[in-house]
Amino acid sequence: VEQPDSPFLQQARLFAEQLADAARPIAMAHFRQALAVEHKADHSPVTVADRAIETRLRGLIGAAFPGHGILGEEFGHVPGARYTWVLDPIDGTKSFITGLPLFGTLVCLLDGARPILGLIDIPATSERWLGLAGTATVFNTVECRASQCQAIESACIYTTSPDAFTAQEWSRYDTLSRRAALRRYGGDCYSYGQLASGHCDLVVEAGLQPYDFMALVPVVEGAGGRISDWRGEPLGLQSSGQVLAAANEPLWRQALAALA
Amino acid sequence: VEQPDSPFLQQARLFAEQLADAARPIAMAHFRQALAVEHKADHSPVTVADRAIETRLRGLIGAAFPGHGILGEEFGHVPGARYTWVLDPIDGTKSFITGLPLFGTLVCLLDGARPILGLIDIPATSERWLGLAGTATVFNTVECRASQCQAIESACIYTTSPDAFTAQEWSRYDTLSRRAALRRYGGDCYSYGQLASGHCDLVVEAGLQPYDFMALVPVVEGAGGRISDWRGEPLGLQSSGQVLAAANEPLWRQALAALA
Repeated sequence: VEQPDSPFLQQARLFAEQLADAARPIAMAHFRQALAVEHKADHSPVTVADRAIETRLRGLIGAAFPGHGILGEEFGHVPGARYTWVLDPIDGTKSFITGLPLFGTLVCLLDGARPILGLIDIPATSERWLGLAGTATVFNTVECRASQCQAIESACIYTTSPDAFTAQEWSRYDTLSRRAALRRYGGDCYSYGQLASGHCDLVVEAGLQPYDFMALVPVVEGAGGRISDWRGEPLGLQSSGQVLAAANEPLWRQALAALA
Repeated sequence: VEQPDSPFLQQARLFAEQLADAARPIAMAHFRQALAVEHKADHSPVTVADRAIETRLRGLIGAAFPGHGILGEEFGHVPGARYTWVLDPIDGTKSFITGLPLFGTLVCLLDGARPILGLIDIPATSERWLGLAGTATVFNTVECRASQCQAIESACIYTTSPDAFTAQEWSRYDTLSRRAALRRYGGDCYSYGQLASGHCDLVVEAGLQPYDFMALVPVVEGAGGRISDWRGEPLGLQSSGQVLAAANEPLWRQALAALA
């Protein structure tokens, strides 16, 4: 496993920032323009921007690290030897196509199955969270820290949409979230940034894909939080799509029990 | 009724912008700071910023227009002769206290019962929508226009939270919104700005207070949209709190029928 002070990890960190820098102007060139919204088989809207960004990022990765694998939302999985870049060019596509500025670009680097770098970039607000295994998560240029809230009853909890849950999942989420001090909807990847910066305490979702959640792992863990599936298992490419992020270990344990 | 070219309306427009300019730095000084969140009888969180802004705006209004009435979220209703300023210092308090930047300051001017000026200001993103009766709504410095989407089936629909609806209201909203091309949560006042700028097509809410919705009326109508309660009646200080905003008249009629 790479250590955070390894030359490769530092190189990867700079490169991930370059990827996000490259994605921003493409996203913003299409944001709030009339878009031909297509519908995929799963009915999530896909935009021209989504594909343009992923194409650009794949090109940059291929040029810099030709041996690395790539898994992206739009163009599938090209396996590599040890390292894999996981890309979600526009997370929060529904926000994007309705002019809501809190969509993001997600970049993750896997060492084998383990996420060692995660980046959440918000082009419209110029905000960026970057997590690197073994170091403190950075918001823009400043280290950030999740909250010390250790009781569900005083927690602020986010999920993007009830529509992403099955009835059974919603029942479990409802049981948990009704105990919270505040529950709120909308957010996509932005909610995990809020958690890493100490502004909310729990984010619970279902129906996510690996490119939606792998980048979140180093961001949340580097801020002192815990993130897993709803059974407490580490997130991986084979995960169920149920995600639980908590500001700290005690809160994570409580939330796991409440979801059970 | 004042005409848009009247000297008073132009004065009021400049003054409303001054109110929003005064609110911005107060909001931003408290945003993402640790806040002592109180709970009112209705359990909505109240922040120090909320009260500081309303106090400041009431002072400015009292100095400029001592005969005008004021109705604010925090400090109640002081009746005036002909004109009344309706203030929501921070709309989207849940967003505000969880570090989400899409909260807003709402300012409305009533001539008798009729809203003749409405302003939605988003301090964290420096975005502002201003509507003045009889003129085109302006987004920042540019006129904006709601969409031409005239079928629910191709509409993007927003509401802030299912938790704001009664079971019976939710059933009606669910029937409507399941027909839409896209439904999305979170937003508060920002959703009505998205609608005025043509990015979403319907916003439907329940459980709102007059200070939540009166400012929206000139913004939506000045962009070509329609806004009313769920029975199609004009919004006023005695309205039920059910709000339906649509990008245009045909879409508004369809949505009214679907909610019935």
